[in-house]
Amino acid sequence: MGLQVRFTDELRSLAGAKWEAVINHRFTDALAAGTIDRDVLARYLVQDHRFLDSFVVLLSSMVAAAPSLAARIPGCQFLALITGRENTYFERSFAALGVDDAARESAPDTAPTVAFKALMRDAAKATYSEMLAVLVAAEWSYQSWGERVLPAAVQEPFTSREWVDLHSGEYFGSVVEYLRGLLDEAAATMTPAERAAVEVRFLAAVDIELAFFDAAYEDS
Amino acid sequence: MGLQVRFTDELRSLAGAKWEAVINHRFTDALAAGTIDRDVLARYLVQDHRFLDSFVVLLSSMVAAAPSLAARIPGCQFLALITGRENTYFERSFAALGVDDAARESAPDTAPTVAFKALMRDAAKATYSEMLAVLVAAEWSYQSWGERVLPAAVQEPFTSREWVDLHSGEYFGSVVEYLRGLLDEAAATMTPAERAAVEVRFLAAVDIELAFFDAAYEDS
Repeated sequence: MGLQVRFTDELRSLAGAKWEAVINHRFTDALAAGTIDRDVLARYLVQDHRFLDSFVVLLSSMVAAAPSLAARIPGCQFLALITGRENTYFERSFAALGVDDAARESAPDTAPTVAFKALMRDAAKATYSEMLAVLVAAEWSYQSWGERVLPAAVQEPFTSREWVDLHSGEYFGSVVEYLRGLLDEAAATMTPAERAAVEVRFLAAVDIELAFFDAAYEDS
Repeated sequence: MGLQVRFTDELRSLAGAKWEAVINHRFTDALAAGTIDRDVLARYLVQDHRFLDSFVVLLSSMVAAAPSLAARIPGCQFLALITGRENTYFERSFAALGVDDAARESAPDTAPTVAFKALMRDAAKATYSEMLAVLVAAEWSYQSWGERVLPAAVQEPFTSREWVDLHSGEYFGSVVEYLRGLLDEAAATMTPAERAAVEVRFLAAVDIELAFFDAAYEDS
């Protein structure tokens, strides 16, 4: 590869200021500091958990579409994490924040949640590269803020700490590198039209990530 | 449900003597007793590992097609097991049996392996119920022989013991019950044509399981 720029670096450059706005959002600073308003965090988690199912559909679809067993294995392990440890984080956090089932169920989907579900479900039926574009945008942006705030992250409450830990560190870094690697590899044989479709998916995901953080500060 | 017969029990009844032949095969008795011929076991494992990739494609496709997050979660956890602990069993067994990479790669696919790969890849593109039909046939038949031979299973060598342990016990029982439950549930709304397609997939899988055990005793 030498001095060649990675395709996924080009995608990030395309997102420009939007990418920076996502990874430097005040939500993540307040989360890491443990000073985040409980209602803001509760609103965020209720909505985030809403598209976990669509995320699993997208990731499992990518695993099925990947070109080899080696390319599938890390995806399978990550599927187990997000439906295991990450899912229990949500359950424990809702209990700690006093969000009961009725409150969770009665909150309407916010506009970014509706958009995320649609993007993930739609990408899951599109090409392998488009699936990866959405996965890379979501996980890489989260890792980027996770690593950024990690040095300042407090130990308690666990609602803050575990959400930072789930999105930083060696294991999560390996997941992001894995997803980026698959997309970089796929880029080598993309037609211009396929590449354009991938860019559209990536930029759409970054836009929604930003709107999603913003929405946590809007009373529903 | 009351006295109603489970759809998956009906499928097993349809397979009749073939099902019994699979779960009572001499291969599994010799495996559990630790008396299995090393060449037979090596041939079996080389071929079995050949379709692990197709199995992962089928299982991840089923996870993506399932109707809810709750229906996806155990599938995600099982994907992690078969690409983790089960995959390392193969690697360690090839080393213990003296099967090097060259020997693994030069062995041609047997006819049942070709048939299994085709069935799994094809079912992965078919309906959700057809995906489940193949998964249920494969996992339920393995659990049935695993539980049958477990009381007689020796502790060593690990090549015998771990293969029995991977296909018996509480966890694997929960996987089989999960897959059967999804298919029983899907059966409630199947048209006669869909039901016929599911039966064809199930019976094809049972046929291949039997041929697969037999093939381990044929010199290639």
